[in-house]
Amino acid sequence: MKRAGNLSRDLPDAGAGEITQTLLAAPGLRIERIVSLGQASPPGFWYDQEQAEWVLLLAGAARLRFADEPEARPLGPGDWLEIAAHRRHRVEWTDPTTPTVWLAVFHNEM
Amino acid sequence: MKRAGNLSRDLPDAGAGEITQTLLAAPGLRIERIVSLGQASPPGFWYDQEQAEWVLLLAGAARLRFADEPEARPLGPGDWLEIAAHRRHRVEWTDPTTPTVWLAVFHNEM
Repeated sequence: MKRAGNLSRDLPDAGAGEITQTLLAAPGLRIERIVSLGQASPPGFWYDQEQAEWVLLLAGAARLRFADEPEARPLGPGDWLEIAAHRRHRVEWTDPTTPTVWLAVFHNEM
Repeated sequence: MKRAGNLSRDLPDAGAGEITQTLLAAPGLRIERIVSLGQASPPGFWYDQEQAEWVLLLAGAARLRFADEPEARPLGPGDWLEIAAHRRHRVEWTDPTTPTVWLAVFHNEM
């Protein structure tokens, strides 16, 4: 696994599907960069994750919906949030015109 | 602790000293935002950390020196690196003209 890099340069082309790169894997911890280009979660699909996820949007734009909230949250560069384990959520929208770059830190909870 | 925010907006004034904000604390894991404005490690000081640190520069510019490397590494937006536990390092320079924003993920190693 690489020990250094740049998250903004040399972005892969996510036109055919989201591209996930694992940047770090350690006990109970995984850091990923995810590049989206217009993808969204399939209709009716909800993520229900064993681990919590601390997620940061580095570039682009997205809308993230929680099952326990009536409306999606708009996310722009610099926005972060902590998603508790098993809190159901889905990506309603990502910008189809420019890459959306996510940093996701999957971790164990307290 | 907050569960959401923005790392780029409403930056604190780090003119009088680096400002660290803990964004997440979980078992063996701590995520921090650090804002620097011209600060560097004191002369002769080296960080020697019990935990590994995955660090990402979000904005600004810095030079990071490892004790086992002859020259400092220049860092710009999007640059990340993994610093092994007890690998001695220091911040040689941060840009005095614009805030440097770091995201630091302190974690246990394999």
